[in-house]
Amino acid sequence: MKVRIDGTTKEVRTIWREGQTIRLIDQRKLPHRFEITTLEDHVETAGAIMDMVMRGAGAIGVAGGYGMAQAALEAIDRDLPEFERYLLEAAERLRSTRPTAANLFHAIERCLDASSTGTVAERVEAVLSEADAIAEDDLEASRQMGVLGNELIDDEVRILTHCNAGALAFIDYGTALSPIRLAHRQGKKIHVFVDETRPRCQGARLTAWELEQEGIPYSLIVDNAAGFFMRRGEVDMVIVGADRIAANGDVANKIGTYEKAVLAHENEIPFYVAAPRMTFDLTCKDGESIEIEERSPQEIVGMWGVDDTRNPSRILIASEGTAVRNPAFDVTPAKYVTAFITERGILSPPFSESIKLTFGEADIS
Amino acid sequence: MKVRIDGTTKEVRTIWREGQTIRLIDQRKLPHRFEITTLEDHVETAGAIMDMVMRGAGAIGVAGGYGMAQAALEAIDRDLPEFERYLLEAAERLRSTRPTAANLFHAIERCLDASSTGTVAERVEAVLSEADAIAEDDLEASRQMGVLGNELIDDEVRILTHCNAGALAFIDYGTALSPIRLAHRQGKKIHVFVDETRPRCQGARLTAWELEQEGIPYSLIVDNAAGFFMRRGEVDMVIVGADRIAANGDVANKIGTYEKAVLAHENEIPFYVAAPRMTFDLTCKDGESIEIEERSPQEIVGMWGVDDTRNPSRILIASEGTAVRNPAFDVTPAKYVTAFITERGILSPPFSESIKLTFGEADIS
Repeated sequence: MKVRIDGTTKEVRTIWREGQTIRLIDQRKLPHRFEITTLEDHVETAGAIMDMVMRGAGAIGVAGGYGMAQAALEAIDRDLPEFERYLLEAAERLRSTRPTAANLFHAIERCLDASSTGTVAERVEAVLSEADAIAEDDLEASRQMGVLGNELIDDEVRILTHCNAGALAFIDYGTALSPIRLAHRQGKKIHVFVDETRPRCQGARLTAWELEQEGIPYSLIVDNAAGFFMRRGEVDMVIVGADRIAANGDVANKIGTYEKAVLAHENEIPFYVAAPRMTFDLTCKDGESIEIEERSPQEIVGMWGVDDTRNPSRILIASEGTAVRNPAFDVTPAKYVTAFITERGILSPPFSESIKLTFGEADIS
Repeated sequence: MKVRIDGTTKEVRTIWREGQTIRLIDQRKLPHRFEITTLEDHVETAGAIMDMVMRGAGAIGVAGGYGMAQAALEAIDRDLPEFERYLLEAAERLRSTRPTAANLFHAIERCLDASSTGTVAERVEAVLSEADAIAEDDLEASRQMGVLGNELIDDEVRILTHCNAGALAFIDYGTALSPIRLAHRQGKKIHVFVDETRPRCQGARLTAWELEQEGIPYSLIVDNAAGFFMRRGEVDMVIVGADRIAANGDVANKIGTYEKAVLAHENEIPFYVAAPRMTFDLTCKDGESIEIEERSPQEIVGMWGVDDTRNPSRILIASEGTAVRNPAFDVTPAKYVTAFITERGILSPPFSESIKLTFGEADIS
């Protein structure tokens, strides 16, 4: 992604590996400060995942793989049983940081599998290349969603997006923002409406920042205003990301996605969901079986930001004891989705068929 | 409305008059502090309207009438021409505080009309009783909406509301919250979902506070979550207020109202709008002719609350220079409204007819 640093524009990834060292953008400080953080060993990496220095399905998966690579390098001088024990302990530590992150588990499993045969040196080499392959896969999937999704974007269109399905949630490009980036780089005149996405405001904090850096015209709006602009004919299409997609095409994503899908449907605006193969869960029949996590009332009653001097600061909006319900995700029924943008193609209804055809069970392992 | 003060529950109005003194709840400090402010003359009252010490159509209208009563008492010892000039200047000052508040203009006009004949003493008396009548009319309309709206509320229902159409927006009871109060006082088991209502969070700051004081069970939710609870079958009805209702039943109200109306429609949940006669603008043909004010980006980029020590504090959420669109209101087409709750009855579709029949033009003057 493009980032403006001291007056010049540079290409930066969300997270990358330099030998045993991992470097990444500290997303907790955005949009107020742009800082690259360094993680020297897998324990620091586990801490960074837990503290949400980076977040987003793809980025967490890559961080997990890189953490395993660090662990392998840390244990390179041990004998084989010690090496194996060290790697298993590292895997356990990394897994426990975000117990619902499917990408994280998947990445750790891939690295453990890669380390299962050969000498210690060979196993270390295998883990390093597997970790790098996970990052490359993520990058390539995002890039490909950009190429395919871009074909859906005409010149002079206004696109609405929700939450952050951008480069910061992956290694680069993102899912929903990948086609938007490419359309802009090709000179298409686009404008992006960015829902602020309460309660954690990933739209206001991250998506608006990414678009600003990239020079893509955008307007930050409150979530309440998405319907207003749709009804006024100021939105031509919606593109969002997804956390989990069931076999029938039901989409679990950030709270509010369902609202925007219904409003798009009512106003006859195409509603696209951009997501890589990893997000499709064919073992999940439909949205009804997806459990929705409810999070702390503190996310709604209070709010983090920076004060006048740009130091982190928290305020209370409502009273501390306010009764709150805070579901983190919602499920958008497949009937509201126009098509899925994936790295393997654009999937159209009926989704039960197109998803199975593209990501058939044998392929998911 | 009920307010818990030092462990006991008292009945308090939003604003009231004691001779030349006006007392009112300082709404800028809610929900963190409950303070009654005193306004000694009409200049202080004008300042309080401008600074939004109180807000809400009804409350502002009553404050305007009380301000005129103060002005009349201030000028009681002057001769007639001086008295008239003083009153006209006061009217001008009060009018200029909130140039789009129809209730304010209406109240000031009523007081000027009342002061048009008789001696100075008689005119003062007439202005005082007109100002008190405005307050009584407001109170009676709210109470009546409660009685009529309550008949729509069954036992054990979950009601969703948006923004603050409560006692604080009027003298007492409110519009949308008036039937809710009465249902609760009659022992019906109700639960209220309160949209926080970004950007100014009147739901989180005011509606949640009113319900807490009254002991009515509620849950504060982010605006993004309203659709989630509707789809899960956890919302049985929606009741909102209105800023302006056109002759055909199109409703201008706080941004986000349209979204909730579409979501209620999609989930087959009745959507009620509670509003007094004053809110119906028969000179306005439909929603298309209602101009929508866009407000400062600061409302979205930053946020006011209180810090750890309960002192007012502002934080930045997004970057200061973020591109923002901030429409303050939206228009909900009449087709999404199940019925209007008014002090003259429940109005059902077709609204062009029921509105005209109930508030026919001759009646509006």
